[in-house]
Amino acid sequence: MSTERNPPSLAEAVNAKGFGAAAGFRIVKVEPGQAEVALARRDDLTQFFGYFHGGVITALADQAAGVAITSGLPKGRIGVTVELKVNFLSPADGTELVARAKTLQMSGSIGVATVEIFTGGDKPERLCAFCTATMRALDLPAEFR
Amino acid sequence: MSTERNPPSLAEAVNAKGFGAAAGFRIVKVEPGQAEVALARRDDLTQFFGYFHGGVITALADQAAGVAITSGLPKGRIGVTVELKVNFLSPADGTELVARAKTLQMSGSIGVATVEIFTGGDKPERLCAFCTATMRALDLPAEFR
Amino acid sequence: MSTERNPPSLAEAVNAKGFGAAAGFRIVKVEPGQAEVALARRDDLTQFFGYFHGGVITALADQAAGVAITSGLPKGRIGVTVELKVNFLSPADGTELVARAKTLQMSGSIGVATVEIFTGGDKPERLCAFCTATMRALDLPAEFR
Amino acid sequence: MSTERNPPSLAEAVNAKGFGAAAGFRIVKVEPGQAEVALARRDDLTQFFGYFHGGVITALADQAAGVAITSGLPKGRIGVTVELKVNFLSPADGTELVARAKTLQMSGSIGVATVEIFTGGDKPERLCAFCTATMRALDLPAEFR
Repeated sequence: MSTERNPPSLAEAVNAKGFGAAAGFRIVKVEPGQAEVALARRDDLTQFFGYFHGGVITALADQAAGVAITSGLPKGRIGVTVELKVNFLSPADGTELVARAKTLQMSGSIGVATVEIFTGGDKPERLCAFCTATMRALDLPAEFR
Repeated sequence: MSTERNPPSLAEAVNAKGFGAAAGFRIVKVEPGQAEVALARRDDLTQFFGYFHGGVITALADQAAGVAITSGLPKGRIGVTVELKVNFLSPADGTELVARAKTLQMSGSIGVATVEIFTGGDKPERLCAFCTATMRALDLPAEFR
Repeated sequence: MSTERNPPSLAEAVNAKGFGAAAGFRIVKVEPGQAEVALARRDDLTQFFGYFHGGVITALADQAAGVAITSGLPKGRIGVTVELKVNFLSPADGTELVARAKTLQMSGSIGVATVEIFTGGDKPERLCAFCTATMRALDLPAEFR
Repeated sequence: MSTERNPPSLAEAVNAKGFGAAAGFRIVKVEPGQAEVALARRDDLTQFFGYFHGGVITALADQAAGVAITSGLPKGRIGVTVELKVNFLSPADGTELVARAKTLQMSGSIGVATVEIFTGGDKPERLCAFCTATMRALDLPAEFR
């Protein structure tokens, strides 16, 4: 297996598709095993009380975890989510969300990442959610390379 | 405390706001302790491979769990998510998602629901994710009643 | 790969070792993808209030999940736990615990099981915990076959 | 409500009962919101391959989380586990386990702690599991004060 790692551009390519792009996910930082992804508040991303929807928070955390894991994998491999768990710690009531993920362990084809999600923008940054994600590495299908 | 339960219309009111409404969540069934919420595929709800995004699947599961728990609560109380966990079992590659939630336990102000999420629409329905959600019941703020 | 499945005796062999044997885990039922494991209360298995300790409940659930997954695998393969999650629903205050596990999905080398844990013995059986476990199938090392 | 916190002796009292005492849990450190609990390997605490059993690892993590949360609570309140989730990252193959817990958030009566579990003793310490626990604070029953 090549020892060459995935280029940061893969994260951008993943992020440019589907829900992430439509919601406005922005990749702030990518390093092998680390990622930071941000999102600005919009009314169509909120829940009943007007804060970021738990599913949107989870989607951002999932994306950050996927980028962190994938950026540490050999070129041509991608991490897909086996399972994730999120604790919602306080209302995500800011104008911005930032998810900071780091790979805790990569063992064979299984990786685990933790993600801290902060809310801020119009107020001091505050931890609003904490996520653990288990990912499985698989070969990127030829049509996506 | 009143023994009167929340009316089904509260679920509709919750669902008519923010991300759920924008994504097109449809409440199919509400009973005390049970809920079914569906979602049609759109390109802006997908991930890299073109299937439903894990965060969108989670959002749907969360909404169904919230409706199931809330519909069993006394009038004026609402369930908010403490934490949730989702296992992604197979690609959500259909044209439709359906999340079926049921309350496993309500004890004091803490409730637990399980949610099965199926994909289908253009193909036979198949279980694609399984979610457990812990919720906390709180008084619905006056401005939302 | 052989289509022959693991014999029920493998579950007994796994259970006869270490903590499970010392605590008194009893395999009640094994079928491919299903397992039931029971445990009688002893003072050295309890927590502060005198009920079964959460870690012991989890150990029993883990064992049941492992047996359920492993019993559905080809001969010579065993399931090891990647992660698990337990919700404690009510005090495990009976004289007996029973964990009933079933495989939700087996996909490649990754399996997911759910486990319902009941307490009873000296009182009517009641659901006291719910567990989801993700397992990875690997080849049983030669010295254990 | 008193602003006086629980004394470290409560952690010792909790630990002196039932499974924790029988298995040999040792409280190494207690501070408000933090705890470290250690455990030496014994054959009756292992799984099939001779490593610490996943349930025992979970029990230790749960105990450490409970001590961390409880030590930050007002005198007379105790944290009980609502749910927990553990990722098993590598074999717990050392002669010692150490669980280090810290409170991530305490909000109303709900607290969340993360726990890193290391294995070592006869070899360099290595992270072998990661746990997130959600706890609920309740009044310590009079007979336990």
